Amino acid sequence: MAVRVAVAGASGYAGGEILRLLTAHPEVEVGTLTGNSSAGQRLGALQPHLPPLADRVLEATTAEALDGHDVVFLALPHGRSAAIAERLGDGVLVVDCGADFRLRDPAAWERFYGTPHAGTWPYGLPELPGAREALTGSRRVAVPGCYPTTVTLSLFPAFAAGLVEPDVVVVAASGTSGAGKALKPHLLGSEVMGSMSPYGVGGVHRHTPEMVQNLSAVAGEPVTVSFTPTLAPMPRGILATCTARVRPGVDGERLREAYEKALAAEPFVHLLPEGQWPSTAAVYGSNTVLVQVAYDEAAGRAVVVGALDNLTKGTAGGAVQSMNIALGIPETTGLPTTGVAP
Amino acid sequence: MAVRVAVAGASGYAGGEILRLLTAHPEVEVGTLTGNSSAGQRLGALQPHLPPLADRVLEATTAEALDGHDVVFLALPHGRSAAIAERLGDGVLVVDCGADFRLRDPAAWERFYGTPHAGTWPYGLPELPGAREALTGSRRVAVPGCYPTTVTLSLFPAFAAGLVEPDVVVVAASGTSGAGKALKPHLLGSEVMGSMSPYGVGGVHRHTPEMVQNLSAVAGEPVTVSFTPTLAPMPRGILATCTARVRPGVDGERLREAYEKALAAEPFVHLLPEGQWPSTAAVYGSNTVLVQVAYDEAAGRAVVVGALDNLTKGTAGGAVQSMNIALGIPETTGLPTTGVAP
Amino acid sequence: MAVRVAVAGASGYAGGEILRLLTAHPEVEVGTLTGNSSAGQRLGALQPHLPPLADRVLEATTAEALDGHDVVFLALPHGRSAAIAERLGDGVLVVDCGADFRLRDPAAWERFYGTPHAGTWPYGLPELPGAREALTGSRRVAVPGCYPTTVTLSLFPAFAAGLVEPDVVVVAASGTSGAGKALKPHLLGSEVMGSMSPYGVGGVHRHTPEMVQNLSAVAGEPVTVSFTPTLAPMPRGILATCTARVRPGVDGERLREAYEKALAAEPFVHLLPEGQWPSTAAVYGSNTVLVQVAYDEAAGRAVVVGALDNLTKGTAGGAVQSMNIALGIPETTGLPTTGVAP
Amino acid sequence: MAVRVAVAGASGYAGGEILRLLTAHPEVEVGTLTGNSSAGQRLGALQPHLPPLADRVLEATTAEALDGHDVVFLALPHGRSAAIAERLGDGVLVVDCGADFRLRDPAAWERFYGTPHAGTWPYGLPELPGAREALTGSRRVAVPGCYPTTVTLSLFPAFAAGLVEPDVVVVAASGTSGAGKALKPHLLGSEVMGSMSPYGVGGVHRHTPEMVQNLSAVAGEPVTVSFTPTLAPMPRGILATCTARVRPGVDGERLREAYEKALAAEPFVHLLPEGQWPSTAAVYGSNTVLVQVAYDEAAGRAVVVGALDNLTKGTAGGAVQSMNIALGIPETTGLPTTGVAP
Repeated sequence: MAVRVAVAGASGYAGGEILRLLTAHPEVEVGTLTGNSSAGQRLGALQPHLPPLADRVLEATTAEALDGHDVVFLALPHGRSAAIAERLGDGVLVVDCGADFRLRDPAAWERFYGTPHAGTWPYGLPELPGAREALTGSRRVAVPGCYPTTVTLSLFPAFAAGLVEPDVVVVAASGTSGAGKALKPHLLGSEVMGSMSPYGVGGVHRHTPEMVQNLSAVAGEPVTVSFTPTLAPMPRGILATCTARVRPGVDGERLREAYEKALAAEPFVHLLPEGQWPSTAAVYGSNTVLVQVAYDEAAGRAVVVGALDNLTKGTAGGAVQSMNIALGIPETTGLPTTGVAP
Repeated sequence: MAVRVAVAGASGYAGGEILRLLTAHPEVEVGTLTGNSSAGQRLGALQPHLPPLADRVLEATTAEALDGHDVVFLALPHGRSAAIAERLGDGVLVVDCGADFRLRDPAAWERFYGTPHAGTWPYGLPELPGAREALTGSRRVAVPGCYPTTVTLSLFPAFAAGLVEPDVVVVAASGTSGAGKALKPHLLGSEVMGSMSPYGVGGVHRHTPEMVQNLSAVAGEPVTVSFTPTLAPMPRGILATCTARVRPGVDGERLREAYEKALAAEPFVHLLPEGQWPSTAAVYGSNTVLVQVAYDEAAGRAVVVGALDNLTKGTAGGAVQSMNIALGIPETTGLPTTGVAP
Repeated sequence: MAVRVAVAGASGYAGGEILRLLTAHPEVEVGTLTGNSSAGQRLGALQPHLPPLADRVLEATTAEALDGHDVVFLALPHGRSAAIAERLGDGVLVVDCGADFRLRDPAAWERFYGTPHAGTWPYGLPELPGAREALTGSRRVAVPGCYPTTVTLSLFPAFAAGLVEPDVVVVAASGTSGAGKALKPHLLGSEVMGSMSPYGVGGVHRHTPEMVQNLSAVAGEPVTVSFTPTLAPMPRGILATCTARVRPGVDGERLREAYEKALAAEPFVHLLPEGQWPSTAAVYGSNTVLVQVAYDEAAGRAVVVGALDNLTKGTAGGAVQSMNIALGIPETTGLPTTGVAP
Repeated sequence: MAVRVAVAGASGYAGGEILRLLTAHPEVEVGTLTGNSSAGQRLGALQPHLPPLADRVLEATTAEALDGHDVVFLALPHGRSAAIAERLGDGVLVVDCGADFRLRDPAAWERFYGTPHAGTWPYGLPELPGAREALTGSRRVAVPGCYPTTVTLSLFPAFAAGLVEPDVVVVAASGTSGAGKALKPHLLGSEVMGSMSPYGVGGVHRHTPEMVQNLSAVAGEPVTVSFTPTLAPMPRGILATCTARVRPGVDGERLREAYEKALAAEPFVHLLPEGQWPSTAAVYGSNTVLVQVAYDEAAGRAVVVGALDNLTKGTAGGAVQSMNIALGIPETTGLPTTGVAP
């Protein structure tokens, strides 16, 4: 019998991607779709790339509308998930694509979001040590941020093996869909095409404490992260360049061995053959993460580059992957591992 | 038992898209892959977006290498298919993505291609009247060109209903993958980004006689086509704007009725609701064609705009759709109807 | 002594381009800059590509603020120019980049704009027969729309020589800056990158009557124009493909002769050598228009393609060119004829 | 009397940009243009954005063809400049846009280029301490690489003031023109649009020793540079994110003061107001560099972002700026400080 799924926030980019994946998921039946200002509209007018659902009409986002489903995906602005979630029954699997339940440290939450901390849910990054166990059977999942997914999957093998110093520099480029459908001047096509620009520089981006949390947990010691996100002229994709000084005695061979070992069994994270580097194009619309690592002897640094699709593995695909685990469906079900390229 | 499929020309854009679709096709097992200059290389180095097939090694394109499969897709340069096809057994389904067997008129072939005509195979545009019957059980299929697919599906309802004059103007924009992986200066990223440019202007593009053939067949009289293709700064997608003078007494309502009737049962061709226009973004990676029609009273013209993905419905998706029909597999099997957007 | 110039609407794309050109104009001193919601802001925050003017602060758009200049450029939303213009003295050269004073037929204005007609000013397309004379010494100029500039310059030689039928089909692709800085969902970078889409289909685009007016005047008889604009994934540029049936006896040679003759003396409109086609990349930031013409014998049509930069020759460059003529400054002063490419 | 200038390598992207700037330079007359495989072709067929020079025909690149000019710009592949330069008279100003004469350390040259070191010429980065003096009257100039220009101008104020540790991490995004017009598969538009990808990772990019040389000279001690370049989906522009740990006692205020002081008098390098960040769009076609600095207290790092146009300030503009200084022409002559945006 099909799993019945509702999606709150179906008019946005994350909501649209969740629906794209769910329509191809063999165990799922798409139920209620909700929106905020778009309530009452046909989905076809909002998400013209989803013809099979074109005639669905969005309802307002209320607990009542979302009731009666096995799974509810929340793709809402940050801070909106808690109020809805607490009104959904404990037996419903709630998968939150917002930030609300990602951080364990209330102080970090309050410093970066400025509101009271709503709590902490099992973290939907199955590749982290212990995560699959925590997700199995859970009825609440906090889907990671797109940057933390990229950076954590790029760096955890090095930290798990104790090969690098806990002082990380990350510069990442993101496609514009990472900023959502917000009507802001700097997101206009005229502004972004042909342009690279940074934002949230100097440690102020809200994904920073999430990276710190993940990497510190793997490292077993506090890790600092200098994180600079940049906006790239493409709709989708994140390319994260991550570097840290290597510990004494570490060289390229040891780095590669650690990555091979850590990633060998992962269905969605691929260490590329030596000499081949990731590109966002290769993971367009795919739940795959491509990773490569190099050793810069002169600078004494490991350089790791990871690429993923911010809407797929970075949001909706990671969410569906976690749903699969939580419900006991085989983890890879319904998730594309091939990209749409060129 | 799985249908065993070989792909000749697996290193190119059409070949890569065929493989992307085949890896998601539940009835198919991917067999031999061949290439020309890329023989001996890992597919992962050539098509990094296809991790499930990354370790496959390409063989040289010979009849021997392609032997022993139920289906052989040919994604070769024009003029290369006939020699290979005649050495493959009559029981093998050969699906040719090249132009060699599309045209019925040898003189038209010779005028536009300059070589002897190889013959004519059943035409892989299932939506045309009579096409599904001709494809069922066939062991040879000529996949249409990407522009003719767009233009024919955009205009056949108007001609089938006798609503427009047989003098058509088409201006179409194509993504750069339509030109293949050829190393030509004008296809460099530096040249194409930020640029629109026409090519093959004045009736010299090789897809022109194919459009004339299709539309004349539907119209039951000779149709002239003024076709101007343009290269657009995007990897994929065709947007074709097609216009013809309407016949006396025809108005917007009659046009819409004809399109509704002609397309109602088609799984891959959608007439959009009034007021909504197609975009290539909405069909990125999808086998869907989006169509809209308007009546310009002042100019006395029907204007029809069709959008599709040149690599999916325009090439590989159309090829798989025809394979399904030829083999008696349900026509929509393995074919995405949702696009990857934004 | 420098010509003192004010710009109303300095925060928009047209206003920014006017300022880019004026800062390089040897006869001009940039005076007051005004805006609407941006009044009080530094220009550097709004137009970061103009460092020489970064510290200028925008005033509100009032006749008082604009008073005291030799020239006032109006880059305002349609319908706002008349009220300002009538309060500026007759001795001030007012160059209106809006539509308000372009059309001669009040009925056409009212049908397409829905407001009372404000009047008709000398038309700032110097290349049209008689236009330079009308502009010389004038103190009011109506700058043409970007599409009408492209289409008129592409087709007037054919009509002036009587070579084509008065039934024109135009399909044009425009960069997104043509839609201005408006915060609309379909103009977001996430939506436009990788996408071609039409809009204003079926004769409803407001630039249609302006093309009809221009071409009918040159042809000496009513010309119908089927005009389909499309939005292309690039910030700037228009590529217009224009076609009309040729009159009996007309062939490619006669077409080319007519274009050579009509354009030989034009400083900003270049007929390309045979076999070379225009691209928008080649006119990026330039006041040049590139034109090419072909004869499609099978379809009996002339096909003319014109390319320009919608913000330069299509708006601000055309405006400055007209200003030069009106003031008796050499026409080409301060106007770039080279593009920024690649 | 005009300075007579020849350009060797006029068919490439650097050569084209040099010509774009020279045609607008009031003191210059463009003389001989040469190419390699393009010798004998019209410039109009190779650089269609330069109509004023369209009818020039390229000669083969020989010392004889380049003889008789006051200035010769060399825009040749690396390793080709020395042989030509030594045959040009000592009185001719030779401005080399290649790498041949940039490095002072022969061992570094040989390690990264694999050929014997040709020598060291005065370095064409006027903003570096002492550089203007060295350039004045010189008849040989080595134009810096595009990445070293960006990174050096972004970081020298911090090193000159002794504010940061000599262990730098740089991640930079470049438009595709930085890779030249080479016909390589990964530079095809189909591949680069929508894609970010790294290359030369791990300290192997040839621009690394040049950055080390520049920053070490300013710092007065050896500086290590971890440099990761990435290819961005845009034709032009470099955005470099540069970070280093701050020295004890350094905070945001001291950083900003150092940058304000170091850059106040520079005509082409602008420190943006606090809170505003550079974008490559704002310097498209301009000789301006935009810089901003932030202090990340949690990570203990200064983060500096610089943006420039790799073909203008990063190559051709820097070359013309150095030519101006060498010849005693005012430094800013003929160089645009406004970008073409949006």
